[in-house]
Amino acid sequence: MTTNTAINLIKHHESGAISADFFQTVKLDKPSIKEGELLVKQNHMSLDPAMFGWMNADTESYIPPVELGSVMRSFGIGEVVESSHPDFKVGDRVTGMMGWQEYFLSNGEGLDKVDSPLPDADVLSVFALPGLTATHGLFNVGQPKAGETLVVTGAAGAVGSIVGQLAKAEGLRVIGIVGSEEKADWIVKELGFDGAINYKSDDLDTQLAALTPKGIDLFFENTGGPVQHLIYNRMNEHGRIVVCGLIADYENGEYRAAPSWINVIKKRLTVQGFVMTDHFHNSPALLEKFAPYVMEGKIKHRSHVLDGLESAISGLNLLTTGGNKGKLIVRL
Amino acid sequence: MTTNTAINLIKHHESGAISADFFQTVKLDKPSIKEGELLVKQNHMSLDPAMFGWMNADTESYIPPVELGSVMRSFGIGEVVESSHPDFKVGDRVTGMMGWQEYFLSNGEGLDKVDSPLPDADVLSVFALPGLTATHGLFNVGQPKAGETLVVTGAAGAVGSIVGQLAKAEGLRVIGIVGSEEKADWIVKELGFDGAINYKSDDLDTQLAALTPKGIDLFFENTGGPVQHLIYNRMNEHGRIVVCGLIADYENGEYRAAPSWINVIKKRLTVQGFVMTDHFHNSPALLEKFAPYVMEGKIKHRSHVLDGLESAISGLNLLTTGGNKGKLIVRL
Repeated sequence: MTTNTAINLIKHHESGAISADFFQTVKLDKPSIKEGELLVKQNHMSLDPAMFGWMNADTESYIPPVELGSVMRSFGIGEVVESSHPDFKVGDRVTGMMGWQEYFLSNGEGLDKVDSPLPDADVLSVFALPGLTATHGLFNVGQPKAGETLVVTGAAGAVGSIVGQLAKAEGLRVIGIVGSEEKADWIVKELGFDGAINYKSDDLDTQLAALTPKGIDLFFENTGGPVQHLIYNRMNEHGRIVVCGLIADYENGEYRAAPSWINVIKKRLTVQGFVMTDHFHNSPALLEKFAPYVMEGKIKHRSHVLDGLESAISGLNLLTTGGNKGKLIVRL
Repeated sequence: MTTNTAINLIKHHESGAISADFFQTVKLDKPSIKEGELLVKQNHMSLDPAMFGWMNADTESYIPPVELGSVMRSFGIGEVVESSHPDFKVGDRVTGMMGWQEYFLSNGEGLDKVDSPLPDADVLSVFALPGLTATHGLFNVGQPKAGETLVVTGAAGAVGSIVGQLAKAEGLRVIGIVGSEEKADWIVKELGFDGAINYKSDDLDTQLAALTPKGIDLFFENTGGPVQHLIYNRMNEHGRIVVCGLIADYENGEYRAAPSWINVIKKRLTVQGFVMTDHFHNSPALLEKFAPYVMEGKIKHRSHVLDGLESAISGLNLLTTGGNKGKLIVRL
């Protein structure tokens, strides 16, 4: 009988690097479908910063943590290999929260059919979570206006790189904060950002002032860390801060203080957070907004593909070290 | 000839208590009006937390600082004693930014006629800045809903006490943070708050948990200080934080860090600041919203009246020590 290899979470993550002892790899029988169910063979899985939150024991978060002893939660893409579900047939390409496993048994809920000729890695890198998150966060939360200045952290990341390109297409001045010279080059030379700053350099404030001569109207926050305070201090009146992630604090699990709210008053700022799971129901409208930018060639991307289910474990650490170059994906 | 006693700001305030050496009292001639002007004899002046900002040298704030050597900025109420302005006649009662002086020469701009039988102190305590600020901040920024829980800091203050009473009238559960047992008694027994916490007590977190069993949906921030973090930690999903003031930091001029934005993400919070000067044009609509609550007897207040122009100087310190009981007003 065919097996289904799966990786279960067996220990909640508080701080430190992700290692093999948080997980247990199990070999189960390939699931059998019942009436109304379908079976998906997963081909690619997405590794995302949000997974640190899901591995935490914090039950107060926006979705419950992964239960110990059950399969690690993740988003992926695959092909329907068996179906007795009226809406899905064998051969359909689907995305959904399939988890770290080869086969995913589903009643169809939360699965979306993929109607695109793009390869799997491109779907996961652009049209799935990153594109939806960037589109919702930038447009619905950030309310960008042509001529404004946007600063985005994690600018070479899956979400940040799309946010910056969308904002450029809308006529904003776009500056990206990244963690290496290679990434700085990529976002300026390949993606067309107006400027990039390596947050590891020692004259951050000078660089930021030089690149944002008219101040900052929109701050799309993916990382946190000390640069947050410098960006905040250059916010213009009525500026908006979209808080999407704080990955600089996910590994050690201690959340550093944010800047005093005095500028929230003086500059009349709005600081607003969101999580994409609240807005999945709005995906069709978001994709309708986002797709034309992709079709017009305005959204470039790169994928960083790891091989094999178990590469996901150490792969997560690339997100906190910034070692990945492009959207992190695991090929099964 | 009649004199006009005025108090000029001669030194910008950075930190520490307000003392006489920041000011110079001058005796000028009573101004003469020209065509299109009017002269107001000021009867009562309002002392407000915002004045610390106006005394600062920070030119990046929402309005320019008071220029050294010119009259200290303030809001007040008085009576027109001379007029060659078509819209104002002798005997009219008016409010406006008249400054720390007996007589105010005006071309009519920014002056509002007071059409109310209420005494001066009541106009300044309820219908002027405090009522406008509370109404705009609570309704337009905070978006309160019946059944929600509101926590307001500076709850016995001019703005906080009105915010709490408006929210009670709207069917919210309302908890106030204050700085003395006397104020705690007043807001619960006189104003009808559901609970009060003296921030100087040592079991703040326990008290807050007991009084907000369903968490906090709306946080109206007037003070800052360590209690800010405790309130923030109890915010519910989709909670709103209205940042109106941080008076706990105004005296020493060092703004303490705010809580990490991680809960802004996890709880999808919105943190939004405002200053009333942006919204004066909307005063008629705000008063239309606010007046019925006053008419129905739902807004109680108390005024703390100081005597004489020069009492304003040391009076400002009552705002930072919390020594005032009710809206601070100077009677001329």
